[in-house]
Amino acid sequence: MKLYDAEWAPSPRRVRIFLAEKGLDVDTRKVDLRSGEQLGETFLRLNPCATVPCLELDDGTVINQVPSICLYFEQVHPEPALLGTGARDKAVVDMWNRRVEQEGLEAVAEAFRNGHPAFQNRALPGPHNHAQIGELAERGQLRYTHFLQTLDARLAESTHVAGEGFTIADISAMVAVDFAAAVKVGSTEGYTNVERWYQAVSARASAGA
Amino acid sequence: MKLYDAEWAPSPRRVRIFLAEKGLDVDTRKVDLRSGEQLGETFLRLNPCATVPCLELDDGTVINQVPSICLYFEQVHPEPALLGTGARDKAVVDMWNRRVEQEGLEAVAEAFRNGHPAFQNRALPGPHNHAQIGELAERGQLRYTHFLQTLDARLAESTHVAGEGFTIADISAMVAVDFAAAVKVGSTEGYTNVERWYQAVSARASAGA
Repeated sequence: MKLYDAEWAPSPRRVRIFLAEKGLDVDTRKVDLRSGEQLGETFLRLNPCATVPCLELDDGTVINQVPSICLYFEQVHPEPALLGTGARDKAVVDMWNRRVEQEGLEAVAEAFRNGHPAFQNRALPGPHNHAQIGELAERGQLRYTHFLQTLDARLAESTHVAGEGFTIADISAMVAVDFAAAVKVGSTEGYTNVERWYQAVSARASAGA
Repeated sequence: MKLYDAEWAPSPRRVRIFLAEKGLDVDTRKVDLRSGEQLGETFLRLNPCATVPCLELDDGTVINQVPSICLYFEQVHPEPALLGTGARDKAVVDMWNRRVEQEGLEAVAEAFRNGHPAFQNRALPGPHNHAQIGELAERGQLRYTHFLQTLDARLAESTHVAGEGFTIADISAMVAVDFAAAVKVGSTEGYTNVERWYQAVSARASAGA
């Protein structure tokens, strides 16, 4: 089994934190996103989506979506459970993780990739080029503000994003917040519930992964 | 338990087909999207995301993401399995379902909602208004063409989207294809593997749900 990982980018970090929480050590190979290694022939043969992370299983199967990689590890190493336990909780965790992806991570990516000169013609990840759209940079910023409002309201009533316990939804949300701060799309300042929660989750050893 | 459903829209249809495949009959209430019922105070109290479908459990929990609703039913009624069995297969099904959502369903929605006069200021679903962006209508159309190319290549090597058996990924892909045809974003004509697969999946009794 081999995990294809990359520096700096938010998606591979989500998997690294997940593995750190599980206490798992997986054979890893770094892909150099800055030189465009993910768009080269060798990598595209492995993962035609041109995305990192991806997990290559021993039978050659390649899993290239973050939550699907996490689902694989959750089943092979169920403890500690990070995707919920029981039908209701699993559905709630899955829902919140998806909401964080759609309303948080996607919003930051929309703002960043459509606004930063380094992503000219790379407004979307994947094997195809797409031009930047200036209005999307603005829309992404606005959507991220809406996300922080939603997250703050949620964390006013709940210790963690998907309920009382720490789950994959907290990992995704923490990565979204760090990503937004790093690329100057938004800050949690003034969102007191988000700040309380962020202090707790970012103090976990896994956050350094 | 109550399922909030709606006419015509692709997302509620995905859940209806899933339930039909399981042979489940769930208490259902129709939401009138054409009159904007999902944006009214009563519905927003139930589901602040202003989206349909959503599933209200007996303890008051509301699940408002399609695959999370399906995950709930898969656990309570495991047969027939539509999310895969075993760690590898569950991860593969989850990955393909996500790819169909991102590359297929989102592409059609991007083209449709940014191009149709009925969606002025409603370019994204949810409680917030967003203006249409003309370039996104074009981009969505192009992305859907890329999706059909990917799907055709995949179905050249595999009976169904996520492997040999019928899964949630087939439901999502069939709904994407029907949605694209209905809103004139694209047609499967000339994609021979997609057409072979489409004939098979749309002949299932569940497709009428």
